[in-house]
Amino acid sequence: MSREQRVRRERRGGDKGLKQLPWRQYRNPYKPIEVVSDDQLEAIHQASLRILEEMGIEFLDAEAREILKQKGADVVPGSDRVRLDRHMVTEYVAKAPSQFTLHARNPEHNLIFGKDYINFGSVASAPNVSDLDRGRRPGNFDDYADLMRLCQSLNVVQFIGGYPVEPADRPPSTRHLDAHYAAITLTDKIWHPYSLGRYRIEDAIEMICIARGIDKEQLRREPSLFSIVNSNSPLRLDIPMLQGLMAMARHGQPVVLTPFTLSGAMAPATIGGALAQQNAEALAGIAFIQMVNPGTPCVYGGFTSNVDMKTGAPAFGTPEYTRAALVGGQLARKHGLPYRSSNACAANAVDAQAAYESEMSIWGAVMGHANLILHGAGWMEGGLVASFEKMIVDAEIIQHMGEFLQPLEINDDTLGLDAIREVGPGGHFFGCAHTLARYETAFYAPMLSDWRNFENWRLAGALDTAQRANNLWKQVLRDYTPPALDSARDEALQAFVAKRKEEGGVPA
Amino acid sequence: MSREQRVRRERRGGDKGLKQLPWRQYRNPYKPIEVVSDDQLEAIHQASLRILEEMGIEFLDAEAREILKQKGADVVPGSDRVRLDRHMVTEYVAKAPSQFTLHARNPEHNLIFGKDYINFGSVASAPNVSDLDRGRRPGNFDDYADLMRLCQSLNVVQFIGGYPVEPADRPPSTRHLDAHYAAITLTDKIWHPYSLGRYRIEDAIEMICIARGIDKEQLRREPSLFSIVNSNSPLRLDIPMLQGLMAMARHGQPVVLTPFTLSGAMAPATIGGALAQQNAEALAGIAFIQMVNPGTPCVYGGFTSNVDMKTGAPAFGTPEYTRAALVGGQLARKHGLPYRSSNACAANAVDAQAAYESEMSIWGAVMGHANLILHGAGWMEGGLVASFEKMIVDAEIIQHMGEFLQPLEINDDTLGLDAIREVGPGGHFFGCAHTLARYETAFYAPMLSDWRNFENWRLAGALDTAQRANNLWKQVLRDYTPPALDSARDEALQAFVAKRKEEGGVPA
Repeated sequence: MSREQRVRRERRGGDKGLKQLPWRQYRNPYKPIEVVSDDQLEAIHQASLRILEEMGIEFLDAEAREILKQKGADVVPGSDRVRLDRHMVTEYVAKAPSQFTLHARNPEHNLIFGKDYINFGSVASAPNVSDLDRGRRPGNFDDYADLMRLCQSLNVVQFIGGYPVEPADRPPSTRHLDAHYAAITLTDKIWHPYSLGRYRIEDAIEMICIARGIDKEQLRREPSLFSIVNSNSPLRLDIPMLQGLMAMARHGQPVVLTPFTLSGAMAPATIGGALAQQNAEALAGIAFIQMVNPGTPCVYGGFTSNVDMKTGAPAFGTPEYTRAALVGGQLARKHGLPYRSSNACAANAVDAQAAYESEMSIWGAVMGHANLILHGAGWMEGGLVASFEKMIVDAEIIQHMGEFLQPLEINDDTLGLDAIREVGPGGHFFGCAHTLARYETAFYAPMLSDWRNFENWRLAGALDTAQRANNLWKQVLRDYTPPALDSARDEALQAFVAKRKEEGGVPA
Repeated sequence: MSREQRVRRERRGGDKGLKQLPWRQYRNPYKPIEVVSDDQLEAIHQASLRILEEMGIEFLDAEAREILKQKGADVVPGSDRVRLDRHMVTEYVAKAPSQFTLHARNPEHNLIFGKDYINFGSVASAPNVSDLDRGRRPGNFDDYADLMRLCQSLNVVQFIGGYPVEPADRPPSTRHLDAHYAAITLTDKIWHPYSLGRYRIEDAIEMICIARGIDKEQLRREPSLFSIVNSNSPLRLDIPMLQGLMAMARHGQPVVLTPFTLSGAMAPATIGGALAQQNAEALAGIAFIQMVNPGTPCVYGGFTSNVDMKTGAPAFGTPEYTRAALVGGQLARKHGLPYRSSNACAANAVDAQAAYESEMSIWGAVMGHANLILHGAGWMEGGLVASFEKMIVDAEIIQHMGEFLQPLEINDDTLGLDAIREVGPGGHFFGCAHTLARYETAFYAPMLSDWRNFENWRLAGALDTAQRANNLWKQVLRDYTPPALDSARDEALQAFVAKRKEEGGVPA
């Protein structure tokens, strides 16, 4: 969509007062930043293969081990340990496609993952939620729903990364039913079920088929859901995640394999070592998924960061994090896989630290050519809080990055020689024809930044960025209207949820 | 200096409690981000050459026009306008070196400019100053001196970019004498006189020669000072700046030519047009300096940003700014010249906006391979304020970038296979030998970021980043000790200042 079209769309009032950029699929025109040489990259990869061959990975689920055994992996008798030969790993990983499309229930919100495509998602899985008015509190369904409404309304939140906050006041056995129903009805974007056993995945599959009015065969051809598995680093995949990802794979739905390699805690206290372990765990998981169902879309996830060695506190958006995110991209490209990274920070307040850590993360993700950027908007405290204000700050940061990715037009018109001639030395360009012709569209217009001079800003209340974000999310919620959903499908969804609740939901 | 050496240095207490990284000369190991293609870059350059040939530049100083005329430029009779033939521009610009060294009075603070070297400077030229305790106030000498002390103490402030804040309570005719004396005695880093006529430059030359105990011939061989000229965009260089830069050039001291091409105000309302104009003005100034004294080190300055078209307010750290900073680097490399960019923001408070705008600027500067990053620490409100807290926030941001630029070590030791084997599936790395061996040195330790968990952070007072920065700059000032200066040189400097004040300083 051209800038002009965008402006027309904005004038139609489609964005209801929030001066945001329109929905778009982003692509990255720039070459990725490469932190390590080809030789260094190969050394990391070779170390990973040695980990898989010599040490192996624990697959705690018996059915998973049986599949691995059938495919020729070395399942250590009487143990959960599985050793994977390098040729087997390479052979199976190669079966995963390099690109795939996820289908939202609103086809305008479909997203391509792979190559130079970039997609930003919401914060996911925070146990707590916070805003300036109500402070920090445990996750609950009302906040979950409000965050879903924000995700729907903010165009740069292109997919829902999971539960933005855990709706912990709903019973565990049926919580996913409420959460999925809300994701489907409050948004029409791509969402994410958790691989906590097979039943939650199966329920999500049923619900997305109802929501889209399709059968499972069509869902297989046009995947809608993705699930993220954070392996239990080091070197372990537990039963719920394995059963969940087997269910996803059998339905042809994409899985993001993201080892939780926090350097110094769950991985060696060196970024090279953490990356070798990350690569080993990701490849093991992806190879296994390809054994379950060859061709299942997989995403190579990188989440390597480090802890504060003095306290054990996890750190994010550090120089180590940024370099690890960039090398993660190099590894994913080496394997021909789409890449997932994150917008992470460790800050406790929506302040300068939150912004500079998030920027370090997002630059690593974007210039590492991540295709799926999880926790894009709203993540705080190393993932312990979903913040309403941070979601707005991040949306602004993503808008900046999104515009940064737009190509610069260089032609006779934009080079503006006639304007420079007309204005001449010492003049100004405010009133010249070249300026007036692009008065409304010339530059990126932020939704959160305040560019007024100090005196005007002071007279208007001297609101800092977090306070302005507070005003903005409330405005967005006031303006929110739910996306259309066919009433028959809605009734069918409600009936499904009621039936599953009657059955007791997921067995404990 | 290795990480280990650094830690030893820190243990010696040289940094007096501030947990900062040691002084170092930074180099950029990554390939620059290229925003435009070679063809587009050439189109911008060709447009600039047409500006210089067809429209020309106003050189308001008669002596400057005489020099240009002697060298064969087309000086329009009865006018200030000078047209420059493309071959003449290319020929003279080629005389400027691609790299040079600036010599501080403390040789440990010498800096190389060019190639992959990156140097960060302080905020410069702000009319106001601000901190959380005393609020915003007009520039004055006491704050000037305190900011100089911070610049001396913060290792990532590698040079003084100019007057961090204008010491406006000192008389204009002798202000530079007080300011230069303070720069020399409160710091031992590279500093910067303003090209406001020839006399201020001549005084600075005398003073740096006294401070270093050298004569002007040695100063010519080992330049110490640099001055920045912001042309009066569009297409004009005024008398004070021309007389200043002629004085600089005659002493062989580097000049940074930075057109003030604010797109939509002093340049076309298109980034392509603003860049064409920036390139024209920079090349005209640099060609002129080479006419005055061939071989004078010159830096190609880029400062292209845009205004808010609705209000005329200047914006910084925007997506347009970042792309312009990157293209500026492409242009500088095309000309074989060192490149100057900035860490700019428009924010009124030391908050998330200040940080995300500064990050957008600094990523553009670093990945555009800027060699001289002005306003690196302390710049706010589009340059209208020097902020004590922002200087600390920026120092942290620069430390992040500085560590990001360090190569990742990949070898058998860092790949850590033995540690992974030792810890095994499901274990943790806290206590393993590989971790203990690098307990103190494994990761970047921030000076400002707070990584404590929410509860501990809350119990410690819930200080946000600006408040923590407030504590830090006070600590730095408490710990400050002036760098050593030979007492005979100090006396000679004082005598020079007294004599020049007696003479009345600079003629009005």
